[in-house]
Amino acid sequence: MLDQSTICAIATSPGMGAIATIRLSGEKAIEIADLVFQSPKSGKKLRDQKPNTLHFGSLYDHDELIDEVVVAVFHAPHSFTGEEVVEITCHGSVYIQQRILQLLILKGAMMARPGEYTQRAFLNGKMDLSQAEAVADLIASTNRAAQKVAINQMRGGFSTELSNLRGELLHFIAMIELELDFSEEDVEFADRQQLKKLVSKIEIILRTLKDSFQLGNVIKNGIPVAIIGDTNVGKSTLLNALLNEEKAIVSDIHGTTRDVIEDVVNIHGTAFRFFDTAGIRETTDEIETLGIERSYNKLDLATVVILVVDTKNEFAVISDRIDKIRARIDSQSLIIAANKVDQGMAGTISDLKKLDLSANEKLVFIAAKQKINLEQLISEMQMAVSLDSLSEDAVIVTNVRHFEALTHAYESIERVNVGLDNRISGDFLAQDIRQCLHYLGEITGAISNDEILGHIFKNFCIGK
Amino acid sequence: MLDQSTICAIATSPGMGAIATIRLSGEKAIEIADLVFQSPKSGKKLRDQKPNTLHFGSLYDHDELIDEVVVAVFHAPHSFTGEEVVEITCHGSVYIQQRILQLLILKGAMMARPGEYTQRAFLNGKMDLSQAEAVADLIASTNRAAQKVAINQMRGGFSTELSNLRGELLHFIAMIELELDFSEEDVEFADRQQLKKLVSKIEIILRTLKDSFQLGNVIKNGIPVAIIGDTNVGKSTLLNALLNEEKAIVSDIHGTTRDVIEDVVNIHGTAFRFFDTAGIRETTDEIETLGIERSYNKLDLATVVILVVDTKNEFAVISDRIDKIRARIDSQSLIIAANKVDQGMAGTISDLKKLDLSANEKLVFIAAKQKINLEQLISEMQMAVSLDSLSEDAVIVTNVRHFEALTHAYESIERVNVGLDNRISGDFLAQDIRQCLHYLGEITGAISNDEILGHIFKNFCIGK
Repeated sequence: MLDQSTICAIATSPGMGAIATIRLSGEKAIEIADLVFQSPKSGKKLRDQKPNTLHFGSLYDHDELIDEVVVAVFHAPHSFTGEEVVEITCHGSVYIQQRILQLLILKGAMMARPGEYTQRAFLNGKMDLSQAEAVADLIASTNRAAQKVAINQMRGGFSTELSNLRGELLHFIAMIELELDFSEEDVEFADRQQLKKLVSKIEIILRTLKDSFQLGNVIKNGIPVAIIGDTNVGKSTLLNALLNEEKAIVSDIHGTTRDVIEDVVNIHGTAFRFFDTAGIRETTDEIETLGIERSYNKLDLATVVILVVDTKNEFAVISDRIDKIRARIDSQSLIIAANKVDQGMAGTISDLKKLDLSANEKLVFIAAKQKINLEQLISEMQMAVSLDSLSEDAVIVTNVRHFEALTHAYESIERVNVGLDNRISGDFLAQDIRQCLHYLGEITGAISNDEILGHIFKNFCIGK
Repeated sequence: MLDQSTICAIATSPGMGAIATIRLSGEKAIEIADLVFQSPKSGKKLRDQKPNTLHFGSLYDHDELIDEVVVAVFHAPHSFTGEEVVEITCHGSVYIQQRILQLLILKGAMMARPGEYTQRAFLNGKMDLSQAEAVADLIASTNRAAQKVAINQMRGGFSTELSNLRGELLHFIAMIELELDFSEEDVEFADRQQLKKLVSKIEIILRTLKDSFQLGNVIKNGIPVAIIGDTNVGKSTLLNALLNEEKAIVSDIHGTTRDVIEDVVNIHGTAFRFFDTAGIRETTDEIETLGIERSYNKLDLATVVILVVDTKNEFAVISDRIDKIRARIDSQSLIIAANKVDQGMAGTISDLKKLDLSANEKLVFIAAKQKINLEQLISEMQMAVSLDSLSEDAVIVTNVRHFEALTHAYESIERVNVGLDNRISGDFLAQDIRQCLHYLGEITGAISNDEILGHIFKNFCIGK
């Protein structure tokens, strides 16, 4: 499985920069670099240099000077890939970058495939598969939460969790197998009560991990927020205020449904994805009813629902709207944004303050136009997804592949649990446990094949 | 003039990449890096590390892990800027790059201004001004010729040429001044014949340098080529064949005249800029005549004119067209592309072969549609600008600022020459020579001021 060729690629962002870095990795990395690099000062060859050192010099294509460069030398196994590695930092002209790549290929290097450096790092045992995948996530991270989860996964947080689980399962299977060895004697080495306890514990851990994917997905793609409310309560004003207030990166992306344009904004390091929803109003018009139905349906896509109400209205109207929304939403956090508080009716405001709120409901008085209390609203939005409470070593699943494997592993362990209740024989239990181990092994790459690897690394960029 | 602050900026191309490099330069570069960097292995501080070494470790913002990075340490004066330099190579997420920049600024670094690293390299005597400017040209180079000229200038080729010239002038001025010291005695230490010879020599060198700007400009921006000819002789077919044939970078750029779209194509490392011209045909239609006039006017912008003629036509028609074009062009190279040679009239072809050609005229028989002989046409185009003959150490002026300074220097030396003819007194001669020295000094930065420097470096990108 291990490719012996020496690969090269541009590792820095494509395009012109002050400098750019080209990475060579493989058995002949230093040998190839020595064919084109000349150090004017020492005259020494790179192969005679100490590892982890930098060398100024010139790159030549025969007699033609290509560039003055700084070359970094890393020796196997103390490099990213675990192989011999040379990094050439040149002037960041696109032409020069291409010239150097061509030159290295001419001298025997191969163009790296997407993700090939990281794949080699995995194959050389520098990291497991979930860590390798975290490298790609880390590079793609656009906000604090995504970076936090990815770097934790890259450093092996997730791997440790899985390895602990595997340990528990192996312990379990050992007990079962001991029983099987003595099956003729009909003894139960494994106390069924004890086993049941262990399986339930593993089930809970797997479910927690599996369920963390919803949050993980949100972290990776931004927290979906639906702003809903009657017409003219100030939904657009609020959205604009949120987008403009935070001198943050605002971009338009196309949502999952074609007709929805979503605004993504980074607020204090957390990405929020706002859905634009049509205003709700009681109507008998069929087409408009349809539009409102669509608005309601979008609530299902949201993690946080902001219901905007107008404090200039009677409390009864507002209360009625709140009840309707409550009936529509499920596990989402609901934030009631009581708008126009500067002009609100005293009675309405005081009644709102008395409102019974459940644990995942919040009430914030705001004035969107005057940008009053927006910070509080934002902090409620953040709290609703509790990203800020992410501990440094929280394990959050962000990868669909991991989610699927965890789901399968969870199903296997559920079968074990049911099997225990039904007192099925040990060999059937062992089979399900082995299946569970298999799925967990797929995540870390303890169990892998070329197809899985190909699928994972093809989505990497070249140079990583 | 020397700024004592420590500056930081992203040095690699903006955007997401596998890795990105952030450069710190200044007295406190290592100190600041040590505030945020931790080496897990050695636990050593960067300030205790040897120069030109690489160190793996983690970057922290207080307790929060930002990224795992590789840090390069360079000690003054052995760095690009001549100062203490730390280069942090992180994972290439845009978020992480920004986070690290913010962190460094928080710890006392300042955001670098455009070109500030190179400006510091100049102020610290690591390079002269023309070399500093060549760094920007090198980064912007998109083809072999531009890269060649820029790297030669960066390595001091131009500076050496100028320093030789200054030497000659200083020798000259010394002789003149010796005369002035003994002026009462009315002796001429400097043999006027000798002086005249020296001045003429300098005049030639300056003119050569000044004139090289036309070529230099062409190298930097691509060689302007006009394809002209009667309607239906195959101009568009030829243009498309040239653009597609060479699986080269083809891009649309807006020309100097708003209504012209130019195609730039890199052929064998040389950038050619093709003008699209309307077909010529004899007409009495006023508007069409205007259009043809415009086509003719574009010839003035070209360095190479390709006149496409149809060998299926009578020789007399072709000959007439050639004469008309000859009358219109001045110093441009003319390549007559005798098209459709596969279907051409035998008489026409044989007459064409007998055509009298001047030194800067070439004739190539082609069949654009069948892509016959295009390579020969391309090689004639390249020869016409003789970029391939650029020797490794050819000094070509590519910079408008240098061109202007050289033009002024040339004017000064011309005045000296005229002055010698008119036997004007030595002090007047000396004044002009000093002016010439001044202009040459402006190029290398021997004579400079904040305004000149500000003007030069503001066009650099940040991070260089």
